[in-house]
Amino acid sequence: MQIAILIFEKLTVLDAIGPYEVLRSVPDWEVRFVAPEAGTVRADSGALGLVADHSIDEVTAPDMVLVPGGEGNRPLLEDEHLLGWLREVDGHTRWTTSVCTGSLLLGAAGLLEGKRATSHWLYLDRLREYGAEPTAQRVVEDGKVITAAGVSSGIDMALGIVDRELGKEAAQAIQLAIEYDPEPPHDAGSPAKAPAEIVEAVTRIAAAEDEWLGARS
Amino acid sequence: MQIAILIFEKLTVLDAIGPYEVLRSVPDWEVRFVAPEAGTVRADSGALGLVADHSIDEVTAPDMVLVPGGEGNRPLLEDEHLLGWLREVDGHTRWTTSVCTGSLLLGAAGLLEGKRATSHWLYLDRLREYGAEPTAQRVVEDGKVITAAGVSSGIDMALGIVDRELGKEAAQAIQLAIEYDPEPPHDAGSPAKAPAEIVEAVTRIAAAEDEWLGARS
Repeated sequence: MQIAILIFEKLTVLDAIGPYEVLRSVPDWEVRFVAPEAGTVRADSGALGLVADHSIDEVTAPDMVLVPGGEGNRPLLEDEHLLGWLREVDGHTRWTTSVCTGSLLLGAAGLLEGKRATSHWLYLDRLREYGAEPTAQRVVEDGKVITAAGVSSGIDMALGIVDRELGKEAAQAIQLAIEYDPEPPHDAGSPAKAPAEIVEAVTRIAAAEDEWLGARS
Repeated sequence: MQIAILIFEKLTVLDAIGPYEVLRSVPDWEVRFVAPEAGTVRADSGALGLVADHSIDEVTAPDMVLVPGGEGNRPLLEDEHLLGWLREVDGHTRWTTSVCTGSLLLGAAGLLEGKRATSHWLYLDRLREYGAEPTAQRVVEDGKVITAAGVSSGIDMALGIVDRELGKEAAQAIQLAIEYDPEPPHDAGSPAKAPAEIVEAVTRIAAAEDEWLGARS
């Protein structure tokens, strides 16, 4: 299986790297990092560069595509070349997938029309703009389209894909190899579990960031 | 707080990026990726390049250092310049930390002598070579030295550091922001939980890889 992981300026790095670490562990699967242009993109924090060896134009028929999120996907939502590429690769894939606000890009490409899908909890309702049915689950599968919730959820999604493709034992072996036995210090990883004042604070901070980013674009 | 995350040729990327995504979420904390030489290093899979903006010689007094693992740390275990840098920065840090086999590097630098520490479960016993007491926990704190278990455990460690530095609310807010509410398809993330035949298979595969890598070095 050839897997194309899209990266772009100001992506959220863990969205891409969580599933990458799972998927690259399958010996016969080839992961290619692709970007609108081959070369280096910077993380949304600015602290790290990631190198895409391939431009999207060089990888047009992967068996799986994975689209991460991050503030950098805002201009891409109107980038017809990229959206056309997503539609083209979707014509070839076994699995078309996203993590976090990557689902907004799938939506903008028209690939979520009439489908159940998820996104980062803060942006879930925006999926309606693309004709999707927002579904508040960590991983949502509708046909060959699999969307995952915020940032860290791509790890769970990728393990699920290994499970579907290669069986329970393969998924367990990779989970064990990456020692994915989570023990966060608190149980606050979803809006249903976090204290109300934490949900409010994160919502308020994100709204202020969005406003600031919107004013700059 | 200034945080130096070491990267190097053939690192395991999630070891570094899991905690990065947590730590970079604190507005006042500055993350710097450092490598033996500034520039691009390749992941252990070969599929991705990561750009370190700084050489280790440029960042010598961070408040926190984080050392990831990966097959690429094998030659570094005998790299006196790097080990000297680790000792130097440890003289300045509030927290000296590692993920996965990164703890072997801390050990080789002499920083785990007489300390409780952990590592990837497959390499835990090797900590004895450095005078450490192998401790099979996901995150082990001994004084200012915090070591985390395999690959994905750095996320939990980083949330714990935010909790220690800034309090419960900050850790909860970041956990919520990265939607860290794990739902792996199976419960096989540690050798105590995975089926015995999976533990045996992963152990056998890793031993074969180690042998192959050892023959090449």
